[in-house]
Amino acid sequence: MADPHVVIIGGGFGGLQAARALRGAPVRITLVDRRNHHLFQPLLYQVATAALTAPDIAAPIRKILRKQKNVRVILASAQRIDAESRRVELDDGHLDYDYLVVAAGATHSYFGHDEWRPFAPGLKTLGEALEIRRRVLLAYEAAEREPDPALRARCLTFVVIGGGPTGVELAGALAEIAHHTMARNFRSFDPNDARVLLLEGGPRVLGAFDERLSAKAQAALQKLRVEVRTGVMVTRIDADGVEVAGERVAARTVLWGAGVRGVPLGATLGAPLDRGGRVIVEPDLSVPGHPEVFVIGDLAAVKDGERMVPGVAPAAIQGGAQAAKAIRASLGGRPRPAFRYRDKGSLATIGRSAAVAQIGRFRFSGYLAWLAWLLVHIMTLVGFRNRVAVLLDWAFQWFTWQRGARVVLENPPVEGPPRP
Amino acid sequence: MADPHVVIIGGGFGGLQAARALRGAPVRITLVDRRNHHLFQPLLYQVATAALTAPDIAAPIRKILRKQKNVRVILASAQRIDAESRRVELDDGHLDYDYLVVAAGATHSYFGHDEWRPFAPGLKTLGEALEIRRRVLLAYEAAEREPDPALRARCLTFVVIGGGPTGVELAGALAEIAHHTMARNFRSFDPNDARVLLLEGGPRVLGAFDERLSAKAQAALQKLRVEVRTGVMVTRIDADGVEVAGERVAARTVLWGAGVRGVPLGATLGAPLDRGGRVIVEPDLSVPGHPEVFVIGDLAAVKDGERMVPGVAPAAIQGGAQAAKAIRASLGGRPRPAFRYRDKGSLATIGRSAAVAQIGRFRFSGYLAWLAWLLVHIMTLVGFRNRVAVLLDWAFQWFTWQRGARVVLENPPVEGPPRP
Repeated sequence: MADPHVVIIGGGFGGLQAARALRGAPVRITLVDRRNHHLFQPLLYQVATAALTAPDIAAPIRKILRKQKNVRVILASAQRIDAESRRVELDDGHLDYDYLVVAAGATHSYFGHDEWRPFAPGLKTLGEALEIRRRVLLAYEAAEREPDPALRARCLTFVVIGGGPTGVELAGALAEIAHHTMARNFRSFDPNDARVLLLEGGPRVLGAFDERLSAKAQAALQKLRVEVRTGVMVTRIDADGVEVAGERVAARTVLWGAGVRGVPLGATLGAPLDRGGRVIVEPDLSVPGHPEVFVIGDLAAVKDGERMVPGVAPAAIQGGAQAAKAIRASLGGRPRPAFRYRDKGSLATIGRSAAVAQIGRFRFSGYLAWLAWLLVHIMTLVGFRNRVAVLLDWAFQWFTWQRGARVVLENPPVEGPPRP
Repeated sequence: MADPHVVIIGGGFGGLQAARALRGAPVRITLVDRRNHHLFQPLLYQVATAALTAPDIAAPIRKILRKQKNVRVILASAQRIDAESRRVELDDGHLDYDYLVVAAGATHSYFGHDEWRPFAPGLKTLGEALEIRRRVLLAYEAAEREPDPALRARCLTFVVIGGGPTGVELAGALAEIAHHTMARNFRSFDPNDARVLLLEGGPRVLGAFDERLSAKAQAALQKLRVEVRTGVMVTRIDADGVEVAGERVAARTVLWGAGVRGVPLGATLGAPLDRGGRVIVEPDLSVPGHPEVFVIGDLAAVKDGERMVPGVAPAAIQGGAQAAKAIRASLGGRPRPAFRYRDKGSLATIGRSAAVAQIGRFRFSGYLAWLAWLLVHIMTLVGFRNRVAVLLDWAFQWFTWQRGARVVLENPPVEGPPRP
């Protein structure tokens, strides 16, 4: 009899960990992903802001898992899960499973305003990061050629919506680009005049952090000349800019970091979802009524005591380990453990040498937090080559104030043979 | 009175050199390029074959020239040159000039078969390199999911058309990917079974080199298990593959390295063109009847004694220096020198540790030629950061047989605000 078939949807932190934790187990694993690479999302904003190259933070999933004999990796897009017949429908074909681990992650939520999406791209994939990079760099190019001062000011206004870690990191990087990277590069304006606005609906930036750290982060942003506005709602985004708290801000470049929700694939399970489109799972992360299906990572809604487990990489990794443990327990006829989330702390960086950190009972900020941020990110990157490349790019940036990836990549031609 | 206005079209090797050589001259320079980056084309095939990242071999033109006060860089596409009224029409606006340097380069020539283009992309831009990388990597992905052995063989057949340096370098890299990089990455086939074919219409590969070096290159390719066919004509390219010398070869991936021709912009000058669409220029590289207009680099047809000056980087750089010298001479009321091409030699590499070199009266091949190739390319790369990054990627590849950029980049969304 063939070993049970475990299908894992998604090669992010959660899916990869689930596969690895099943190493040597008597199962056949198929890992499906729409993309050929695992992406280190915490550094994606640095690709968007031209500090890192795309391959710096990505590695082929099949290469990562090449030595694990019980895993097969396929490139395909999971469209629908039929939990009753234990089948995953792909864009082209299907997979039948004995166990399923759904680690398909989250996508952007525009809070019912999907018409904002083209004007305010979010940051989840390498394609989106390169699109943001393109828009940021081309805004400066357009400003160089714009004779009308008002239109030039619009080219040089960058609005970031959402004051979470991604928004804070993007805004800090955009300010450094304006005030340092672009120095002396233009003849018809001073890049120092560029404006970066960070808009947050809640009362403070980094709302998930301690209040004192939020204040530190805001001060660090203001030192970089980011205009931080908290407690303001964006009511309109269009080709001209944004409307915020009743005021029009003319801006060529608007970036979205305000909300995420579970990917639509989650809804096809038929299980209850929370308001953020995430699947409400059992304490062992399985789907109610389907002990053979697990949902982990950003797509899962699970409680840690009174709080929800946050959508961060360590939670996804722990979820992957949990799913693997539960599958091994079932195979061995043992009872499954419940999922216990271990908070590894939170870190966010705000440009050169500034960061905030909250680890256990410790709160710190400034240079030390920035060093911690740097160490944690280098150590958790997948692959030796990526680590060295990222370190090199950071060292270059540190010493020269330049950014190594200031390159607008054209769209490849869309014609041609069909894509698999 | 304002200084004379020099417009340079193109930020490649030639245009960049023309701008630099006019440093401190009493002129206002505007350099126009469609892209924001200068591209080190000799290493483009390594981006296409996932060895280097795109920003490794590109640098923002305006950053390169930021310290040169008499240069302004703008991002725009030159559409047409009106030599009579001394005006360059852009996609959006125009530029009037006193002197013009046209360094707009070459594009692919499909010898009257433009319908082949979607099936056999060429390699001139970063966008094309990323498209080739995508096709090569996705061919292996498709093979992993293909149950039919004949169709799988088609996925694993790579055809390179054209046995010049680009074709030879591409074919060598594709063979290394098949026989080394992809090892153990797949479960339904052995990547060793992939076939790489190099098709050349002439009697030998590297026709511009000495015959003995051609033979060495062919032997090196065959050692890498590239199937080299010379003296064969391709009569058809379509979605299924190619027809060569009356035989059908089923291939999912076909790459074009067979021909180039001058960009269409050259024809708008109204000057005589050669068969390759290149502008036939005077001995000082100016356009007949228009001593204020120069054509340099791949777009210029100029003789060096009996031979045509080849379309290589050193010729473009020398052309840029010549145009600057001629402009300075005219400004000073001195007679212009004629262009003299100094042959710096030719190098081509065929994978790991194999290369051929022809420098002056010297001919050599193998490890020494490969070292020479490596040194010359590192030294002529623009920018310290690029040099270090490329060296790092090469070292990684040398020690691990892996390639650092095995990442398929999705197309960024095409919706959104207009592009400048």
